[in-house]
Amino acid sequence: MTSIDDTDRENVLTAVEELLPELQEFVGDLVAERSVLGDEAGAQAVVRDRLEALDLSVRELNADDVDGIRDHPEFSDTGHSYESRSNLVAERSGTGEGRSLVFNGHVDVVPENDREKWSFDPFSGAVEDGRILGRGASDMKGGVGAMIFALAALDRAGVTLQGDLAIETVIEEEAGGFGGSLATALAGPAAGGAYDAVVIPEPTDFDMWIANDGVSYFRVTVEGKSAHAARTDDGVNAAAKLYPIFQALSELHDERKTSVHDPLFEQWYDQTVSLNLGSIHAGEWPSSVPDEATLEARISHAPAETREHIHTVVEETVREAADDPWFDEHPPTVEWFGWRGSSAKISTDEPIIHAVQDVMGTMNGESQPKGFPGGIDSRFFVNYADTPAICFGPGAHNIHGTDEFLPVDELERITKAYALLAMEWCGYEEDE
Amino acid sequence: MTSIDDTDRENVLTAVEELLPELQEFVGDLVAERSVLGDEAGAQAVVRDRLEALDLSVRELNADDVDGIRDHPEFSDTGHSYESRSNLVAERSGTGEGRSLVFNGHVDVVPENDREKWSFDPFSGAVEDGRILGRGASDMKGGVGAMIFALAALDRAGVTLQGDLAIETVIEEEAGGFGGSLATALAGPAAGGAYDAVVIPEPTDFDMWIANDGVSYFRVTVEGKSAHAARTDDGVNAAAKLYPIFQALSELHDERKTSVHDPLFEQWYDQTVSLNLGSIHAGEWPSSVPDEATLEARISHAPAETREHIHTVVEETVREAADDPWFDEHPPTVEWFGWRGSSAKISTDEPIIHAVQDVMGTMNGESQPKGFPGGIDSRFFVNYADTPAICFGPGAHNIHGTDEFLPVDELERITKAYALLAMEWCGYEEDE
Repeated sequence: MTSIDDTDRENVLTAVEELLPELQEFVGDLVAERSVLGDEAGAQAVVRDRLEALDLSVRELNADDVDGIRDHPEFSDTGHSYESRSNLVAERSGTGEGRSLVFNGHVDVVPENDREKWSFDPFSGAVEDGRILGRGASDMKGGVGAMIFALAALDRAGVTLQGDLAIETVIEEEAGGFGGSLATALAGPAAGGAYDAVVIPEPTDFDMWIANDGVSYFRVTVEGKSAHAARTDDGVNAAAKLYPIFQALSELHDERKTSVHDPLFEQWYDQTVSLNLGSIHAGEWPSSVPDEATLEARISHAPAETREHIHTVVEETVREAADDPWFDEHPPTVEWFGWRGSSAKISTDEPIIHAVQDVMGTMNGESQPKGFPGGIDSRFFVNYADTPAICFGPGAHNIHGTDEFLPVDELERITKAYALLAMEWCGYEEDE
Repeated sequence: MTSIDDTDRENVLTAVEELLPELQEFVGDLVAERSVLGDEAGAQAVVRDRLEALDLSVRELNADDVDGIRDHPEFSDTGHSYESRSNLVAERSGTGEGRSLVFNGHVDVVPENDREKWSFDPFSGAVEDGRILGRGASDMKGGVGAMIFALAALDRAGVTLQGDLAIETVIEEEAGGFGGSLATALAGPAAGGAYDAVVIPEPTDFDMWIANDGVSYFRVTVEGKSAHAARTDDGVNAAAKLYPIFQALSELHDERKTSVHDPLFEQWYDQTVSLNLGSIHAGEWPSSVPDEATLEARISHAPAETREHIHTVVEETVREAADDPWFDEHPPTVEWFGWRGSSAKISTDEPIIHAVQDVMGTMNGESQPKGFPGGIDSRFFVNYADTPAICFGPGAHNIHGTDEFLPVDELERITKAYALLAMEWCGYEEDE
């Protein structure tokens, strides 16, 4: 059940349908901008034009203008300066009493990788057979279009929200979100702009991600001793020394997948957390004993665990596996590097979750709250802005792979859902 | 005991001493030419000038002119064309009855690698504190100078050899010797130029290498199945699959070092053969399950073993270690790649060995026959030209490392040894 009047509902849904060709064109224009990490400006310009066409005043929120962001525990330097790489924030004030809502979408995309493997231009943006084609169509330029055109549809239908609505488009989510949603989450409340809920159009297939695992990358380095191949026993083979550590970490994964549980995660996959041994590298040449071996891995931790705990567990596992006199003088090192993300979780009782479920119910659908086994931007709002945040969007079609696309019917459906959600959450009035 | 008359001996040794400044300068000039693989021409030009100054006619022997060399089982393509990369052959005919001798030295050097680590210019060629400094001084531009100046000293002392003497300077020994000594070994007999012995000035520290291990490189590739880190168990970690194979090959080394013996090798090192696990590589990114893992290794085989045997042993070891249902559908592959060298061994009764020992005896020294645990150019003459060949040269001082040098007293001593060896082996007459 929603509080939305049937006629108002129909008017808004009709407005979305009328705007659909324009929406497809907008998403296509956005896909055509190859907005990989560092190159988000072109996509943001496309967004800005559209937001201004809705009579919104668009503010640039640059990570460099957020005090202390570089000292934030979740910040990592991606190696790209923030010059010409601002987030955009546009706010539509409500009439007064309603709850406020933020739609927050990222405009960056992962690279297309091997273009030869695509069966169409990765930055086509064309619509064929009812699908918008190209990198980012699902993740998440379709969703960004939907959240903007939801507001356009409300305007077209003469619906005015009671609560404030903000639209944020952010950068570098695919690299961790440091200068993107971390910046907007930190700046929002500081500027007096705390909101009552945040919705992020990740391609959740119309379910909701209301929790996520934390993620850490670590590198184990083991020292050996070089020697010529003909005298291999004069050396110490670092790759051989690494093996028991590799094995112990593999066993740690097995242990954790049976001992760490969160039902939000396990309703759609049989593990809450994982430890992935992503690479091992040792030596460069058959004729030398490798004098160094490295292992790089990704470990996730559940919302109920802390980063400190998981780091301790890994470091102890490595230390215990290094059970060999060689290691007394040459202890393996563990470095935590690169991307890191906190875990987050909101209560299943949060009103925003019920609002989404109510809206989807009126559309003959449903939306299950789930946990996502990795980093998502919602964690910044939950952990650092005390704001309930969820991911809720269309399907994920070949995201991060080749031939990414988004079915137009999913684009239409999520746009309708966003428009109705804004009405349901913020409350609304019809224009005179 | 040698057959050399005391006075003749003294005259020749004196001639070497008189030529020593000129010899040092020549070696310095040769060191100053950075004759790494592919860039041997400058060094060969320095050699040619000197050989012509000895009234020798110098012939270019290019690998491209040796019929069928590219089909030879020992040939590998280094990726460098042989244009402007000839070997040089200069022959001095003897007066008649004596045994013939070849001095064969390579003019290429291994790269200097990190120049910053050197305490002097790697291509200095200067003499300081009684040492000739620079890459190649020991391996083997000093030896090349010694073999040329041995002939110069004989000329200066008025000694004419009875047997023919050839001086060969060759390319790409450090890369395997395919277009170098393999070419001269194959061309020699074909051109009617079979000799009775070959001496190569490798830095043997005045001992002799009369045998060598064969060497093969191989690569084991194991297939896995990629998956995102969050679903690591949906993938198959290729690095984990590689481990039992790594372990089995490590055990093969342990087994072979106790079961394969040749006393020529074990008098100076406790193993005859080795299997070195030189590199393992799997995965590029902590967030993905690695879908391929490779191991590269070098295995040596003793003179009593064949390459075919050792290949079979490795392939069977890998097959047996791949004892896992995954491998039924995804068997590991073994490729033999890159450098390969045959093993070789001559009898300790070969007269050239005794000749060297006799000469060294007259110089208050000795020379032990040994086996070398890798590829040396002598194998080509032994295996493909039916000619006894040994390596015999000065000390090895930081060869293939930083700050390579050669003590001038070792240069003088080996030059004297070569001159006396030529007299002893070929027989001689004094000029009228």
